Amino acid sequence: MSKKANITNRKTIHIEWGDCDPAQIVYFPRYFAYFDACTAGLFKKVGLPKRKMLKTYGIIGIPLVDLRASFIAPSRFSDTVVVESEITEWRRSSFSVRHRLFNKGVLAVECFEIRVWAITSEADPERIESKPVPREVVEMFSSENNNRPVRQKSRRKKR
Amino acid sequence: MSKKANITNRKTIHIEWGDCDPAQIVYFPRYFAYFDACTAGLFKKVGLPKRKMLKTYGIIGIPLVDLRASFIAPSRFSDTVVVESEITEWRRSSFSVRHRLFNKGVLAVECFEIRVWAITSEADPERIESKPVPREVVEMFSSENNNRPVRQKSRRKKR
Amino acid sequence: MSKKANITNRKTIHIEWGDCDPAQIVYFPRYFAYFDACTAGLFKKVGLPKRKMLKTYGIIGIPLVDLRASFIAPSRFSDTVVVESEITEWRRSSFSVRHRLFNKGVLAVECFEIRVWAITSEADPERIESKPVPREVVEMFSSENNNRPVRQKSRRKKR
Amino acid sequence: MSKKANITNRKTIHIEWGDCDPAQIVYFPRYFAYFDACTAGLFKKVGLPKRKMLKTYGIIGIPLVDLRASFIAPSRFSDTVVVESEITEWRRSSFSVRHRLFNKGVLAVECFEIRVWAITSEADPERIESKPVPREVVEMFSSENNNRPVRQKSRRKKR
Repeated sequence: MSKKANITNRKTIHIEWGDCDPAQIVYFPRYFAYFDACTAGLFKKVGLPKRKMLKTYGIIGIPLVDLRASFIAPSRFSDTVVVESEITEWRRSSFSVRHRLFNKGVLAVECFEIRVWAITSEADPERIESKPVPREVVEMFSSENNNRPVRQKSRRKKR
Repeated sequence: MSKKANITNRKTIHIEWGDCDPAQIVYFPRYFAYFDACTAGLFKKVGLPKRKMLKTYGIIGIPLVDLRASFIAPSRFSDTVVVESEITEWRRSSFSVRHRLFNKGVLAVECFEIRVWAITSEADPERIESKPVPREVVEMFSSENNNRPVRQKSRRKKR
Repeated sequence: MSKKANITNRKTIHIEWGDCDPAQIVYFPRYFAYFDACTAGLFKKVGLPKRKMLKTYGIIGIPLVDLRASFIAPSRFSDTVVVESEITEWRRSSFSVRHRLFNKGVLAVECFEIRVWAITSEADPERIESKPVPREVVEMFSSENNNRPVRQKSRRKKR
Repeated sequence: MSKKANITNRKTIHIEWGDCDPAQIVYFPRYFAYFDACTAGLFKKVGLPKRKMLKTYGIIGIPLVDLRASFIAPSRFSDTVVVESEITEWRRSSFSVRHRLFNKGVLAVECFEIRVWAITSEADPERIESKPVPREVVEMFSSENNNRPVRQKSRRKKR
């Protein structure tokens, strides 16, 4: 049951001039770059900064297969927003991430990503294949480990 | 009934090195910049390039309120893809756009946008409000006008 | 002479996956988005976050007229870099900014910007004109104010 | 002397809403993404689309070591601009590219890139090394080949 208490990553983002469009609000594709960094931040939090994650598990990345987003309120340059991110479901070779972006405490954007654990296809190097998410990766996100990040880290290193 | 035969915009996009990420595939937020340009292309096709659209109708843009996308197959730099876009539904002050990106004839990404016809709020210049889409804009997309783009253009100029 | 001791802004940047290209290094235009945020950070440090700067002085921004950059060493996703920025020269209606990006303490990118204090031309709203930088803005960057940020802030508010 | 008559690539670019910032003009880092695509376009023109260039010569790319740009006049969304690009000098393992962006026939941005022919260092895979530009690549850009693109292509294929 401990796995239900998900690890949440909170990332503070200062909205830059260059993230905004001529309507003076965030150009919406930029939100997805924010959220992509937030997903990376979640993995970093459990001990897997992206470069290490790719090297350790031999994957090419965790590309998206599905995305949904609701834009509730605009944000502007010089605003500081907070994004709360968590993995809401693990499946065999994919997982779901939810991001909620708050501006002055109010939910402004909500986004749901489905991503796959991906490798280059051996049969065709131009293709990408999904692969089961390693059990130890899922376990890093369990609440038990969440409370003991130091032990979890050292345990992983022994492998 | 003529409105059912939607205007479709086809845009050919050469995928650039800078659109791709370290997995050597398109970085997914870039798809949304493509699609945003495709929506602008749809309006341009009926005689409303974006700058003219904003000036003519006094709007600040057509921001998104909702987005869904499925990533079916990756694309890579040096690929040339085609995006087919159409407005699938007009509502009072919002409308839906569907984009389908094809790589070598195969559907690679599908995206659904819901956008609003937006103005700056008079009460609070920091807020954005939706406004009914002008009837003449909807009519520009009807198949009748589609077949007579020249007449439609001159008609609009008279107003 | 006090003006010689320039205010320096140090900004720590975590390099994201989406900032990198298929060569797995930072896609060079992204450096300029970093540096643009660093210039904004410099002004924020003296009490002028960008939105406030635009509103207070009625400018449309501080666009570039000239740019030079040297790329000495690449940086990669998951790297954390530090950018040191300072205004190296004030002229009548323009100013120079130097950015130095360090990766693990080593200079990796150096950039020199020349920017103008810009307004919309009254004669032609499609044109942009430069305007003298207000004396009080230049003074905010003097070392005297640098040491007394609180007093400087309150002084500015009185105007 | 034939090498003096440089191959020029002309690329027409429609400036998109998402390329512009809150001042309603092109956000300057976007120009460098345009120019990067223009350099790729130059190589494509002589028979080396980027993916093929990387595969054929075993390089990781042609990263920049130096950049200079002058921003003479702003451009806006819905503008259509033309960029003329040419390689102005070949050195042993680097080369210079000049881009000139014209808006309504007027020079609006000029940019000079110095790029290197780059491979991953064998000693340290985290490092990048420059390598002599293959003679046949330089020859593809000579005016003689320029006039006989078909023969040049077939000649290259034989190798």
